[in-house]
Amino acid sequence: MERTLIGDTPKKLNEKILVNGWVSAVRDHGKIKFVDISDRSGVLQAILSDPPRVDPSRLDEADKLSESRRVLKDEISIEDVLELVGAVKKRPEKMVNPNIPTGEIELEVADLKILEKSEELPFDMGGTDLNVSLETLLDYRPLVLKHPKIKAIFKVQEVIVQAFRESLKNLGFTEIFVPTLVPVATEGGAEVFKVNYYDGSAYLAQSPQLYKQIMVGVFERVFTLAHAYRAEPSVTTRHMSEYLSLDCEFGFIKDFSDIMDTAEAVVRNLFVVVNEKCSVELGFYNAKTPLVSDKIPRIKMREAQRIILERTGRDNTKEPDLSPEDEKEICKYSEEKYKSELIFITHYPTKKRPFYTYPSDDDPEYTDSFDLLGRGLEWITGGRRISSYKKLLDNMGKWGNKKEDFEIYLQAFKYGMPPEGGFAIGAERVTMQILGLKNIREASLFPRDMQRVDIKIANKKSD
Amino acid sequence: MERTLIGDTPKKLNEKILVNGWVSAVRDHGKIKFVDISDRSGVLQAILSDPPRVDPSRLDEADKLSESRRVLKDEISIEDVLELVGAVKKRPEKMVNPNIPTGEIELEVADLKILEKSEELPFDMGGTDLNVSLETLLDYRPLVLKHPKIKAIFKVQEVIVQAFRESLKNLGFTEIFVPTLVPVATEGGAEVFKVNYYDGSAYLAQSPQLYKQIMVGVFERVFTLAHAYRAEPSVTTRHMSEYLSLDCEFGFIKDFSDIMDTAEAVVRNLFVVVNEKCSVELGFYNAKTPLVSDKIPRIKMREAQRIILERTGRDNTKEPDLSPEDEKEICKYSEEKYKSELIFITHYPTKKRPFYTYPSDDDPEYTDSFDLLGRGLEWITGGRRISSYKKLLDNMGKWGNKKEDFEIYLQAFKYGMPPEGGFAIGAERVTMQILGLKNIREASLFPRDMQRVDIKIANKKSD
Repeated sequence: MERTLIGDTPKKLNEKILVNGWVSAVRDHGKIKFVDISDRSGVLQAILSDPPRVDPSRLDEADKLSESRRVLKDEISIEDVLELVGAVKKRPEKMVNPNIPTGEIELEVADLKILEKSEELPFDMGGTDLNVSLETLLDYRPLVLKHPKIKAIFKVQEVIVQAFRESLKNLGFTEIFVPTLVPVATEGGAEVFKVNYYDGSAYLAQSPQLYKQIMVGVFERVFTLAHAYRAEPSVTTRHMSEYLSLDCEFGFIKDFSDIMDTAEAVVRNLFVVVNEKCSVELGFYNAKTPLVSDKIPRIKMREAQRIILERTGRDNTKEPDLSPEDEKEICKYSEEKYKSELIFITHYPTKKRPFYTYPSDDDPEYTDSFDLLGRGLEWITGGRRISSYKKLLDNMGKWGNKKEDFEIYLQAFKYGMPPEGGFAIGAERVTMQILGLKNIREASLFPRDMQRVDIKIANKKSD
Repeated sequence: MERTLIGDTPKKLNEKILVNGWVSAVRDHGKIKFVDISDRSGVLQAILSDPPRVDPSRLDEADKLSESRRVLKDEISIEDVLELVGAVKKRPEKMVNPNIPTGEIELEVADLKILEKSEELPFDMGGTDLNVSLETLLDYRPLVLKHPKIKAIFKVQEVIVQAFRESLKNLGFTEIFVPTLVPVATEGGAEVFKVNYYDGSAYLAQSPQLYKQIMVGVFERVFTLAHAYRAEPSVTTRHMSEYLSLDCEFGFIKDFSDIMDTAEAVVRNLFVVVNEKCSVELGFYNAKTPLVSDKIPRIKMREAQRIILERTGRDNTKEPDLSPEDEKEICKYSEEKYKSELIFITHYPTKKRPFYTYPSDDDPEYTDSFDLLGRGLEWITGGRRISSYKKLLDNMGKWGNKKEDFEIYLQAFKYGMPPEGGFAIGAERVTMQILGLKNIREASLFPRDMQRVDIKIANKKSD
């Protein structure tokens, strides 16, 4: 007998079907037991009774009822993996559940097989919310991820990533696949992981930056989904040691506003797609995609600092970067003044940005770079890059980078690089910020940080 | 003035346009110079003459001609990045090139800007083929990748990856993103890279295997694009230290033929899409996607060994695996006997497969596993996995794996795992095999191996 997906069961009224899935709830009413069974397409109420309430005319004589009787002896539990055969019936009027697509039907079970038993759960998975600590969220990842509200996070993440790819494909970008093992620490030496590589060493890429730039020389417009690694020496709510970076880069820009225009288009489309495909998931979190004005405001970092000084009396106008507090404040300002929860901050100081960042033509103390902030946090970072081979060599000298370490990268500029730039979106950041999660670890299937690789590192050590 | 993509120029006859691109050829005819300019959408012949041959009525008075004249003094070279303004004209009849979409037109250049100069190329990039050694192919990657025939490899690769994703999305799979930093060496201790992870160690995942299995418990059907790392202690033409693995896994299978059916469907669709989207690229390599019979033959490994013995007299019937020679021979057999360049080899010995592989119900010395071979090489590996928590624990004991090292993985089986399995496709392998490349490094943008991370490791050391 072919399996019917639960999502298709409303079309099978009064038919005999086979469904597979996990037990997500059991309601015991003595002679009758209600079991919610879930598969990838939905959830269905199944009824076990002794004797079975099945219309005999609709079932084969051969149906064995022993198993469903056995189950009535309390042998069924949450997360058991089942195969059920039964008849799809209309629910009694007063039992209809308008909140689920299968709310008007139920399955009258004639035969039941337990494909795999689950052990007893360490905490209640039945509520709308999973009220456990962050520690438990991470220690019981394979179980926790089954909870509908947790699972929803990764459905949203999938949609975000797919929307990113789709936007860029539509703009003529080519998808590329670049390595994560790299010969040198490219963007700051401290926060890089070292790999024992045969008899020598390699490093884990802090970003696909250098490779996506190289590939502009080949495909002109490229994007990549990259694993990025940062040996963050501290534990914060917004950093991880490994994260997913949605990166793109493109040539023949007129100036760096082209890059912001593209970033803005990608983010807008992302919101459209998330709203279209994830209304249920957004609902779980009472979440809305950010309010965005017709054009996302763009203000210089120095200007942002002056606004913050005016608003709060906090004088950070000499600082080379916005502090986390500043980022929150300027987002609040943007929402109040422009009705936009997103804001571009531009022109970060040259000294604070990597060697490849393009210094502004009118004031080389500042760069053609930007961050897109949303709801108090950085979502996207990007900018124009230096495309002249000579200028790049010159800058590498100033930054103290050795030319020999960047032989392959530099080659791309030796043989004709157009004016170019790009940006990177942190996939977990955006997921977290759209859903209003408190900790970025909640937006990663298996988060890695200073203290954890699957399990707590300290635990592992003490084994 | 807005940029016109070269692919759109045939629609702009007699119009004045601006194009951007790279110089891909220069043909000098004294007073007239023909320059091929390429962008992401195509290649266009541009004509520089002194005085310019442009119809003055079609150009603004303001056009400056100085730059194009300067160029005539031999200042233009291959890979220079240009901005050209000129008029699109019909080519003289005898100059028409039927092989390119812009073959009936040319650009009469009125104004030219060199956005970036290229240095002199170390070898000729002009031919249909790039006749250089593998060493040069890798040492000059950023330049080499610009060659149309090399670039084509990665266009095909992009299409392969996108076809894989599309197939699985259509089959109800969810895309997941899993980490590459893992706590233990999961599939054989020797060939794993160790990472200095804060005060301790982590490893680079040899595959996303354990995580995709965990996620079957959550989404039932999942796929992921994973970076996989193998510390291969030797240099071969078909292995790299980092490669792209197209992985999927799904639950509620009836038996392991379901997995082969899905693999077969994915591969067939992949060929359809590659043929549809990559005819030009296949043409560069005189390549055809493999011949496949109505149903790809499936034979047991022991049977394959007997066939090889019969055909060649080579007795490997006691060996636990097929040798590279055997793989070639059995592919030859499949092509001759079944007119299929692809063949499934099934039932590899239990001892040679990882601890999670499902031993066949009728003969537990062998497993419900398979390789899909194509044109003499493994393309896909897959199989059914053990889904019972107890059996898995039992097997880990036999394989000498410590339960504590797999705490997170095991949890997924504790709380209800359906019968499941999956497979993995090596993206570079398939690219190589479809195009008939000799070395897998040619199918990787920036290949890593024992000797190379961008540049030769030996070179780096001697710096």
